[in-house]
Amino acid sequence: MSYVSHLVCTNCGKTYPAAPEALTCPVCGPEAGILDVVYDYEGIAKLDLRSRLARDKDPSIWRYSPLLPVTEGLPRPPLRVGGTPLYAAERLGAQLGGPTGSRLGLRRLQIKDDGLNPTGSLKDRASIIAVAKAGEAGAGVVACASTGNAASSLAGNAAAVGLRSCIFVPGRAPQGKVAQLRIYGATVISVQGSYRDAFELSQQAINRWGWYNRNAALNPYLVEGKKTVSLEIAEQSRWEVPDWVVFSVGDGCTIAGGWKGFFDLYRAGVTDRMPRLLGVQAEGANPISRAFHGGGPVQPTGEDTIADSIAVGVPRNPQKALRAVRESGGEMVDVSDEDIREAMRLLGSTTGVFGEPAGAAGLAGLKKLVGSGGIGPDERVVLVVTGNGLKDAANAIAAAGEPIRIGADLGRLEQALGGSGLV
Amino acid sequence: MSYVSHLVCTNCGKTYPAAPEALTCPVCGPEAGILDVVYDYEGIAKLDLRSRLARDKDPSIWRYSPLLPVTEGLPRPPLRVGGTPLYAAERLGAQLGGPTGSRLGLRRLQIKDDGLNPTGSLKDRASIIAVAKAGEAGAGVVACASTGNAASSLAGNAAAVGLRSCIFVPGRAPQGKVAQLRIYGATVISVQGSYRDAFELSQQAINRWGWYNRNAALNPYLVEGKKTVSLEIAEQSRWEVPDWVVFSVGDGCTIAGGWKGFFDLYRAGVTDRMPRLLGVQAEGANPISRAFHGGGPVQPTGEDTIADSIAVGVPRNPQKALRAVRESGGEMVDVSDEDIREAMRLLGSTTGVFGEPAGAAGLAGLKKLVGSGGIGPDERVVLVVTGNGLKDAANAIAAAGEPIRIGADLGRLEQALGGSGLV
Repeated sequence: MSYVSHLVCTNCGKTYPAAPEALTCPVCGPEAGILDVVYDYEGIAKLDLRSRLARDKDPSIWRYSPLLPVTEGLPRPPLRVGGTPLYAAERLGAQLGGPTGSRLGLRRLQIKDDGLNPTGSLKDRASIIAVAKAGEAGAGVVACASTGNAASSLAGNAAAVGLRSCIFVPGRAPQGKVAQLRIYGATVISVQGSYRDAFELSQQAINRWGWYNRNAALNPYLVEGKKTVSLEIAEQSRWEVPDWVVFSVGDGCTIAGGWKGFFDLYRAGVTDRMPRLLGVQAEGANPISRAFHGGGPVQPTGEDTIADSIAVGVPRNPQKALRAVRESGGEMVDVSDEDIREAMRLLGSTTGVFGEPAGAAGLAGLKKLVGSGGIGPDERVVLVVTGNGLKDAANAIAAAGEPIRIGADLGRLEQALGGSGLV
Repeated sequence: MSYVSHLVCTNCGKTYPAAPEALTCPVCGPEAGILDVVYDYEGIAKLDLRSRLARDKDPSIWRYSPLLPVTEGLPRPPLRVGGTPLYAAERLGAQLGGPTGSRLGLRRLQIKDDGLNPTGSLKDRASIIAVAKAGEAGAGVVACASTGNAASSLAGNAAAVGLRSCIFVPGRAPQGKVAQLRIYGATVISVQGSYRDAFELSQQAINRWGWYNRNAALNPYLVEGKKTVSLEIAEQSRWEVPDWVVFSVGDGCTIAGGWKGFFDLYRAGVTDRMPRLLGVQAEGANPISRAFHGGGPVQPTGEDTIADSIAVGVPRNPQKALRAVRESGGEMVDVSDEDIREAMRLLGSTTGVFGEPAGAAGLAGLKKLVGSGGIGPDERVVLVVTGNGLKDAANAIAAAGEPIRIGADLGRLEQALGGSGLV
């Protein structure tokens, strides 16, 4: 049996049964009527989840089935989503001191490498739930509008179950990302126009032909998939919740999902506290951060950053994100593209983790907050790297710097390596 | 304690103690004197490995420590190498019938997705051992010559332990691969000249400055890392060894490693038989396959294929590979670049696994052998996908085909999707 109790509208508070096709509140409409999934926490508390999980050898998100909105007994989509590693990062932590401050850094920093999910990003956690729910709803086609990780994760997870996918991308979508979609066998519609045009056409098509909707901001089940990153962080920390968890922020769904995971564990009595959240946006696309600091409503911004996965000027669902960071007693920080490039190098060279620009943006923001004294050296911090650097070779090239070019001669090599400490 | 007994020269049979810096037979020299690692199989047999592993929750290769050439009690390099998923692939298997034959396909095909290792390839299994052995040898720098997965896996695993790496690449190395190395903080030497020039300069530098040598063909410990893919396949199959295991073949070290894994399990009494091996080479770079079918010595070929990871015209260590395929009663098959591109699409669209060209080449060869009746429909086959398709976006683009380009209009969309079965 499923432990889902019901859905509740985050705007008006009205509740609904959790049918797979129930996506937004009919009273408040698809813009404001975002739904939250509520569980039978008392029932889950009786399960003794900690002992149950200690015996479970399945490393994927399905180990957390009682906390997921899927019907028990149905076959699960097969890609091995989740179970990503949590690495100690002492050398990286030591390098995060302030520019003029005490340079104490962080003694207990850890990296959650979610770029090791099957299609290379945290979005697999949401898309595999979308594919499971599409199956429950009897849909034969899943669809979304996206140029990035949401699209490739949907296409890959759909291919793994033999479900067809239809992906709408704006005309400017990079060829490499389109190729990944096509390799997974997705039907890819390249729409002449902006991302908004592609999004609107996808919504029309979804309504017209009854496809299953994986447009993340509107589908309450997707946040439930994303929350598994926090369930894993808590379990990998032996249920000691960290002091801080760091996410980069685009449309806000991922950090909201991260918060929901810690919330569900806390409500079910599995953990005894909540973390503080640090949300990091790019300076050129920071509407949620602006609203966080300014206090007013969310206003559109540009989308000017190399971190394409968080280049969102008009977030569809910022309220859950704002609420999460505020309730946590957390913070939001903006970072420049140069900060992000530096963070890509710093992350890779001290931990062996190659994050895409949006994945490294979190580190850039963390460095700022540690530098200004906002996080102390003994606080335990988990940084979530949301996507694989291999997804965006062009920006890695820009960040990485040139090799040493020489002829095949040992003498010249010795000269070239002078001062490197290698010879 | 380590269960390594000694090293033995595969050429002259002389034995040596297993010191971390012992790499080739001093009698036969570095070209012919390839060493094999021999274990105390009777000692391992007493461990009851099956029960021990059933209790072990570590998903990484370190769960197989008794079968690895590393000293117990030392810290392990931290990247989570291994523990990659083994997927059932019924829909793919059903599509592997012969062109004019019975079209029965394969009923029991599985995919081992080794592209989900930390730096995106099976080579992580070797490089993490190199980094561990470099630590045992007290080296401060590791080095190799490579343009591809060996280089990035060495750079990533070295970064994770704070070890410096120096990578020699030929001048023509693709920018994206160089960028990945630079992000991991490797010193990258771009050598004006061929791959052979880069290799020779790396050997000179390694000898001159005492760096640790990760040139795979020469270092016997690397094959021991690669063999863990087979240990995992056996364990994930509940110790029922498959009928066939399929690898793409470049210099031959990977398929030789795969064979060694099954051999060690068999010798230690953990399994009761060996699989047959299918080795797949590209038509434009097939020296090992030619020698296999022709019976004579290995002769150089060109290196003309899109599958850069197996584009090896002069393999440094073909004998272990030839011996493995022959002893297994196996087969070798050549495939064209067009076969490989078709296999990339077929693999991605039926399983959700995105393999690099060399990773998909194995599927192309398997399809040929099934089509000609060389493998029957009820034989159990495991296909190893050795690298992540994200490593080579350019070839994915070439393989994937174009999207549907239209204006943002539902009527035009309906027209464009006519006949697709979606609407």
